[in-house]
Amino acid sequence: MPRFLDAEELDLLAIGAWILGTGGGGSPYASHLVARHFYEDGGRIALLDPDELADDDVVAVVSTMGAPLVFQERMTDAAFALKPVRVMEAFRGRPFRAVMTVEIGGCNAFQPLLVAAASGLPVVDADAMGRAYPEAQMQTFSIAGLGMVPHVVSDIRDNDVIIPTASGWHEMERVRRRVCTEYGSVATTCQAPRTGAEVKRHAVLRSLSQAIALGREVRRAKMAHEDPVEATVAAGGGKRLFTGKVMDVQRHTTEGFLRGSLNLAGLGEDAGASFDIAFQNEFTIGRRDGAVIVTTPDLICVLDSISGEAIGTESLRYGQRVTVIALPSQPIHRSAEGLRHVGPRAFGHDVEFRSVFGEELA
Amino acid sequence: MPRFLDAEELDLLAIGAWILGTGGGGSPYASHLVARHFYEDGGRIALLDPDELADDDVVAVVSTMGAPLVFQERMTDAAFALKPVRVMEAFRGRPFRAVMTVEIGGCNAFQPLLVAAASGLPVVDADAMGRAYPEAQMQTFSIAGLGMVPHVVSDIRDNDVIIPTASGWHEMERVRRRVCTEYGSVATTCQAPRTGAEVKRHAVLRSLSQAIALGREVRRAKMAHEDPVEATVAAGGGKRLFTGKVMDVQRHTTEGFLRGSLNLAGLGEDAGASFDIAFQNEFTIGRRDGAVIVTTPDLICVLDSISGEAIGTESLRYGQRVTVIALPSQPIHRSAEGLRHVGPRAFGHDVEFRSVFGEELA
Repeated sequence: MPRFLDAEELDLLAIGAWILGTGGGGSPYASHLVARHFYEDGGRIALLDPDELADDDVVAVVSTMGAPLVFQERMTDAAFALKPVRVMEAFRGRPFRAVMTVEIGGCNAFQPLLVAAASGLPVVDADAMGRAYPEAQMQTFSIAGLGMVPHVVSDIRDNDVIIPTASGWHEMERVRRRVCTEYGSVATTCQAPRTGAEVKRHAVLRSLSQAIALGREVRRAKMAHEDPVEATVAAGGGKRLFTGKVMDVQRHTTEGFLRGSLNLAGLGEDAGASFDIAFQNEFTIGRRDGAVIVTTPDLICVLDSISGEAIGTESLRYGQRVTVIALPSQPIHRSAEGLRHVGPRAFGHDVEFRSVFGEELA
Repeated sequence: MPRFLDAEELDLLAIGAWILGTGGGGSPYASHLVARHFYEDGGRIALLDPDELADDDVVAVVSTMGAPLVFQERMTDAAFALKPVRVMEAFRGRPFRAVMTVEIGGCNAFQPLLVAAASGLPVVDADAMGRAYPEAQMQTFSIAGLGMVPHVVSDIRDNDVIIPTASGWHEMERVRRRVCTEYGSVATTCQAPRTGAEVKRHAVLRSLSQAIALGREVRRAKMAHEDPVEATVAAGGGKRLFTGKVMDVQRHTTEGFLRGSLNLAGLGEDAGASFDIAFQNEFTIGRRDGAVIVTTPDLICVLDSISGEAIGTESLRYGQRVTVIALPSQPIHRSAEGLRHVGPRAFGHDVEFRSVFGEELA
């Protein structure tokens, strides 16, 4: 039986998902408010454990895509989230059993909740990234070799595109990115439908529950006047990498992405050192005094040193006191095929992946 | 009853359509060869008079779109022309009665012939421009206020896009242009299906026959050692505007278009004068010694002064001896709504349209 999420879990999901966004995925703030408002009006959203899916159930995989900086200006709503799902249902000629997000990191943690609010569909407790990543072919379904079509991209007005056929995941990604850019660098998607069997085998399972648990631990630490950064590191099995102050942010919205870099000057025990992080929506590689010390698929998270709240690549600014931490990646992302899709070279950084968590995870 | 085109008519269509391309539409050369080859193998293509369409017949409207310069490198074939038609049939769940081109000018005169060669469908003797124009919303169906979706764009490999909904013709055009650019600035399309009633009411009727007749007159003049440029002017009801030599060509392939300008130095009775023409795939505006003397929708054609053959914007080069002529436009393009879609301002030139054919056509 699916269970209903409670209102507090929405708040905790917003905290946890934002940390797992690794700087990208867009702030959950606006989507969280939509979901909260739905609850205040008496609505409820059902969470479905993946084991409750029949093998031949068909699940809608949804997202908001684009440049996170734009999400702050053109906010989402339930109708916008649902639109591509309806286009996909009309195209396939059959309804969906449930809905899931492509990525637990950032605002997309809430995307299936918005679809659920508008449609009544239950939300599967799973995603296809275990974090946030900027491109479609970086999802676990791609790494597992599943197909990429049909794929629907919608804008907030009356424009939709269906990609019924594609010669590969990268080709499909490039086409939908062009469409997204034309739509103003923000679009909603309904991606290739997945069967219950595919979800249970290839998705990152129970990641909504894990994000909620992470958020709960951060909140508990704050209430107990403990260090919320330390609580996040402990709850996520992570490592603290650097503490400092934001000195410079380079940022440009290009090709439907937010790309750039961040420079930190060390504080406390890191005084005198510098730390640089590059991003393409998400943080991809970190260098201490010029030497690479962390790369994707390790999750690189930048947290406010006092509040422990995650800071997105679109809201970094001079003077912020931040702590850089790493959280461990999904096993599939550390496989040879996974690294081909999401390792540092997939983002243009010609270095080997070496996990900060050492050999057992590398 | 449809009649079969004969092989000579294919040759004449290539000549006439290239003149009506007004510099754009892409050279019919490669498409013509494909059609010739089909005939040499015993194939035949049926031409259907628009009056033979029942009002509720549904016609596929097809084209190759992109930058003509690219068409010379990545040539078309019948399977590539047919591909988006099959995607559209699958999307709509019903087959087409016939096929027609969106534009008679340039290689698209042959596009429905290639579809016919691969499918056996008859070709409707009509088009939706009476010439070539670079953007979808410039077709007569758009000017008449008909819908723009569904619209299919295909690449030469396994990539297709269906646009099932769009907020307007311009929005649809911009999205498909982005997709086309991603496809390498060449794509085939199957545009919004039209009923027989819509074709009979809003298309440019019997334009294949007219292009063939124009080609026949040019060929006759050459055989009779008459001036083929003069024959084109006479057969098309046109005007000679300038004779000169190509001094400079500025050309860049951008946003899926071939844009640029052409500068001519006068020869003979035009000696001492200069003539400049701007183009976006097609020639859009001509200036003699800096003064605008001709603009779209008048057809601006650049012909080889000796052979009378049309020269496309992608094959202009220094030293060519050319004659610029104008041919009269379709009445719908001279209407207020037509000028809004295809007048000089639609191409960024802030001048009024004043036909070189005087008040009776302006």
